Amino acid sequence: MEDGPIGVFDSGIGGLTVLRELINHLPGESFVYFGDTARVPYGTKSAETVQRFSRENVRLLLERGVKSVVVACNTASSAALPMLQKEFSVPVVGVIEPGVRAAVKASATGRIGVIGTAGTIRSGAYQEGIKRLRPQADVIAQSCPLFVPLVEEGWIDHEVTELVASEYLREFAQRDIDTLVLGCTHYPLLKPVIARVMGPMVKLVDSAVETAREMVRVIARENLSGWTGRGRFSVILSDTSPSFEEIARRFLGRDIPAVELVNR
Amino acid sequence: MEDGPIGVFDSGIGGLTVLRELINHLPGESFVYFGDTARVPYGTKSAETVQRFSRENVRLLLERGVKSVVVACNTASSAALPMLQKEFSVPVVGVIEPGVRAAVKASATGRIGVIGTAGTIRSGAYQEGIKRLRPQADVIAQSCPLFVPLVEEGWIDHEVTELVASEYLREFAQRDIDTLVLGCTHYPLLKPVIARVMGPMVKLVDSAVETAREMVRVIARENLSGWTGRGRFSVILSDTSPSFEEIARRFLGRDIPAVELVNR
Repeated sequence: MEDGPIGVFDSGIGGLTVLRELINHLPGESFVYFGDTARVPYGTKSAETVQRFSRENVRLLLERGVKSVVVACNTASSAALPMLQKEFSVPVVGVIEPGVRAAVKASATGRIGVIGTAGTIRSGAYQEGIKRLRPQADVIAQSCPLFVPLVEEGWIDHEVTELVASEYLREFAQRDIDTLVLGCTHYPLLKPVIARVMGPMVKLVDSAVETAREMVRVIARENLSGWTGRGRFSVILSDTSPSFEEIARRFLGRDIPAVELVNR
Repeated sequence: MEDGPIGVFDSGIGGLTVLRELINHLPGESFVYFGDTARVPYGTKSAETVQRFSRENVRLLLERGVKSVVVACNTASSAALPMLQKEFSVPVVGVIEPGVRAAVKASATGRIGVIGTAGTIRSGAYQEGIKRLRPQADVIAQSCPLFVPLVEEGWIDHEVTELVASEYLREFAQRDIDTLVLGCTHYPLLKPVIARVMGPMVKLVDSAVETAREMVRVIARENLSGWTGRGRFSVILSDTSPSFEEIARRFLGRDIPAVELVNR
C-alpha cells in the first residue's frame, strides 16, 4: 500500500497549483493527477452533480492503486469531501480546511473575505470553517464566475480582468478586510490583478501550501510514506486539451509525461 | 413515426433560442429538448469529445422516440453533424448550413465576419460553408470564448461585456464587413452590445430562424408531419440548473414543464 502513488483530482488544470506544492513537500512520493477536462467547469454545476463526478474520480484513481486522494478542487472539496471520506477507506484530503487554517492564521483583525466559484460560495464551506476556528470572525463571501474563464482565456493581466475584479471585489474594499482567501485553484494566477485592486494591506491566501502540509501529516500519521516515487507523476485527462501540456509545464517547472485519455 | 416528437439538443440552454423558432414554425409538432448542462460548455472541448457527447445525446433522444433531431448547438454541429447523419437513420439537421445561407443572403459586399466558440471557429465549418456558396466572399473568423460566460453571468448589457466585445470585434471594424454571423446560440442575447460595437451598417445574423425553416422543409420532404403535438415540449437536463426555468420561460414566453434529470 505504501508503495502506491498519491491520487490528485481536479475539474481541470487548476489543481496543478496544488500538485506543485505536493511534489515540493513530498519529493519522494509519486502522484497520479486526474483532470476532468471533458466536464470542466464544476463551479457552475449543482452539488449533486459535483458529488457524482467526485465519486467517479476517486474510483478512477483507486483503480490506479492510489494510497490516498487529494481533492485539489475547491468546488469538489466543498460539495463532496465528507461524502468521499465516508464512502472510501483511503485517506481523502480537501483544500478547504487547509485554506481556512491559512486564512485564520493570516488575519489580524478577523475581517476575512472569501472568493470562489458559485458552487463553493453557495456551499458555505469556507464561511462555516472560518467561523468554527474563530467565532468572532467577520466573513464576507463573493462568487466570481468570470475569473476561471478569464484565466483560461489567458487574460491574466488584462484591462478587462482588472475591471471584472474591481466589480467583484468592491464590497471587500469597503468592508476593510485584512485577508482574502483565493478559494479556487485558478485564482492564484490572478494574484497580480487582485493585489492591485485590494491594495498592499490585504493578505491573499491560497490553500496549495497548507494542503501539501496537511498531506505530509496524513502520510506520516497513517504510515503511508513510500519514498519510492522520487517525484514521478502521471497525468490522466478526460479530454485532450491543447493548452494542458504548456500550462502544466509552466505550473510544474518540468516536462510532463504523456497524457492518458479516459472517457467521461 | 410521424407521431413522434422532434428531438433538439444543445450543450446547455442556448439552444432554447432555436427551440423557440422551431415552435413558431412548426406549431403542431411536439418537441423533446435535451440540454447537457452537466458537461456544458462544449465550445472549449476537443472535436473528438464533442462528437462522443453528440452521439450520446442523439441516442438519448432516439430512446424517447424522436423522428428527427436538431443539433441546436454550433459547436456540436460543426464537429459532429456529418458523423451523426451517417450513423443515424433519422434526419439530423444542424445550425451551421442554415446560418451560412442566412449570411450569404444578407451580405451585399461579400465581406462577412463569423464569431463563435473556439471549437466552432477552429473547425472552419462556417468559413468553408460560406466559401462554398459564394467563392468570392472575404470571410474573417474570430472566437469569443468569454461571451458564453458573460451571458451566463447575466452581464448582458454591462461595461465589461462592451469592452470584451470591442476587443474581440476590433478586426471586423477595420476590415469593413457588412454582415456578422452570430455563430453560437448564446450570442443573440448580446445583440445590443454587439450592434453598438459594430455600428448600424453591419447586419447581425443568427441561424435560429433559418434552422427552423430548414426543419419545415425536412419534415415535408420526409413525410414526417405529425400535427399531434400542438406545441407540447418536454425538457431533459443532465444537471439541475437553478436558472434554467427562469431563462427558459424568458426565451420561450411560456411556462416550462417539469424537467427530467439524467446522469451524464
